[in-house]
Amino acid sequence: MTRASFEERASRGPNEASADEARAYVERVRSLVEPKLDELVPPETVEPSSVHAAIRWSLFAPAKRLRPALVFAAGETFGASAESLVRTACAFELIHTYSLVHDDLPAMDDDELRRGRPTCHVRFGEATAILAGDALQSLAFQAVAEDEALDATLRVRLVAELARAAGTPEGMVAGQAHDLAAEARADVGGEELELIHRRKTGALIAASARAGAMVAGASQVELEAVGRYAFDLGLLFQITDDLLDVTASAADLGKTPGKDARARKATYPALYGLEAARGRARSVYEEACAALDRVERPTTMLRAFARLVLERRA
Amino acid sequence: MTRASFEERASRGPNEASADEARAYVERVRSLVEPKLDELVPPETVEPSSVHAAIRWSLFAPAKRLRPALVFAAGETFGASAESLVRTACAFELIHTYSLVHDDLPAMDDDELRRGRPTCHVRFGEATAILAGDALQSLAFQAVAEDEALDATLRVRLVAELARAAGTPEGMVAGQAHDLAAEARADVGGEELELIHRRKTGALIAASARAGAMVAGASQVELEAVGRYAFDLGLLFQITDDLLDVTASAADLGKTPGKDARARKATYPALYGLEAARGRARSVYEEACAALDRVERPTTMLRAFARLVLERRA
Repeated sequence: MTRASFEERASRGPNEASADEARAYVERVRSLVEPKLDELVPPETVEPSSVHAAIRWSLFAPAKRLRPALVFAAGETFGASAESLVRTACAFELIHTYSLVHDDLPAMDDDELRRGRPTCHVRFGEATAILAGDALQSLAFQAVAEDEALDATLRVRLVAELARAAGTPEGMVAGQAHDLAAEARADVGGEELELIHRRKTGALIAASARAGAMVAGASQVELEAVGRYAFDLGLLFQITDDLLDVTASAADLGKTPGKDARARKATYPALYGLEAARGRARSVYEEACAALDRVERPTTMLRAFARLVLERRA
Repeated sequence: MTRASFEERASRGPNEASADEARAYVERVRSLVEPKLDELVPPETVEPSSVHAAIRWSLFAPAKRLRPALVFAAGETFGASAESLVRTACAFELIHTYSLVHDDLPAMDDDELRRGRPTCHVRFGEATAILAGDALQSLAFQAVAEDEALDATLRVRLVAELARAAGTPEGMVAGQAHDLAAEARADVGGEELELIHRRKTGALIAASARAGAMVAGASQVELEAVGRYAFDLGLLFQITDDLLDVTASAADLGKTPGKDARARKATYPALYGLEAARGRARSVYEEACAALDRVERPTTMLRAFARLVLERRA
């Protein structure tokens, strides 16, 4: 790990890991989660191989693994072991991947490039992509239900948390439906846009952090604090996503940029302009960190994640 | 309830309820399950209303409620209370309904009529239908995870059972993928057709009966016996489905008949002819009943269900 520069140390608080430390943490989580995902998903050699190949195509594309990293960072903040966190972390990545596969479908966002590759339906056909997404969702719940490292009461709470965050009316599906309905309208304001994002991506991201904390046996107050932090982190991620759609290249993003503007979609830059959108990102980052002030433990890694998202370039 | 005719009593064994009793049982299950489904699914007045309307359109169409009836019949065979069974029964119907919504999509079976109504995507559009199916799956797992009538260990076993039966490589999604792949081929034989059916519909039907028995605390031998019975029942259902596709009218079926033949799809009548397919239905019915011989309790209702399926006209 390179030594943090004087400038970098000066720009972060004393209670925050460096960007390099945060990136190393994410790499460690990846090295634990990806082999477990490989175990949890049937191999391509097993029939129906088309569905298993499609699942693997989408699941093992280069990915940030943000949700597993949050499960781990929140869990380890409150003392959970890696062994007790790994299946829960995988479950969130399985749900996230199912949502990407379905959101990219022609009837939904109609995207052809994702994580630097052709999207699942472009590569395997629509029917197989629909089925791959469906199977990913089942596999997520199975991964938690069969997690022998956790007692049954905890597993049940995790299944419920995951299901609420994935579904409707408060979860990811509700957000995606709201987003699709809003696309057709010209009058989407800032408050509505925020509600859409908080459901479409915030709910699952918040649940990732809460789930990690649950595995660690965190208190209700602690669960609420990390949940609020991660809910803000999800919104921050979406604002920076909107900003990158305006400012980044396809090579950086691994997907087609400029789509939002062409679709005349409501985004933070479109609603507020680039500078004000950057200001909103900064204030959401600060709110995320403030939520962690209620946790009486070092939250260095969680704070470093928020800064990574604030400053991400892809 | 009408009194069973002499002929009817003569044609069934002493250990079997009459068709009227079986129909009354299914109606009782319906009267317990449908109000609970209504509770478990957000109302249309809650946003996103399009998704909730689509979910309700598909879930509350006239339906047989075969899987809930099996959860109850297997559960009550081994002494479970209705209160302890109702959410599990709902969960299987939620999963089944999600699979119908997705299977009907243009990229899959491309059906326009289901349960006597336009299919979900015809009525609400493809994007909403995809999301409605996705949300139905999440709601199913949530229904079990939040079932306060059952202890956590049991809930976890039920979630795992449901997920395995719904997913891949042994469950419903695997069967549907295999079915779609086989459609393009002319060389599908009887054994392969049976494997497809056993996964596509048999796995979830078998799991319904197993789940009911699990709630009742049935032994491993008993679980295996009712699972085997229901697996055969699922195959029987599919054979009679194939037969009805040839012999029934759209009004009876509530969906478009003759589709299989037009699609040159492998079916029992296509492979064996009508008479041999009817003979296969009869022998699968007998195997289903034979599986129940290992249960040392009255299995009158389960046997009556098998006969209802054997003799169904719609």
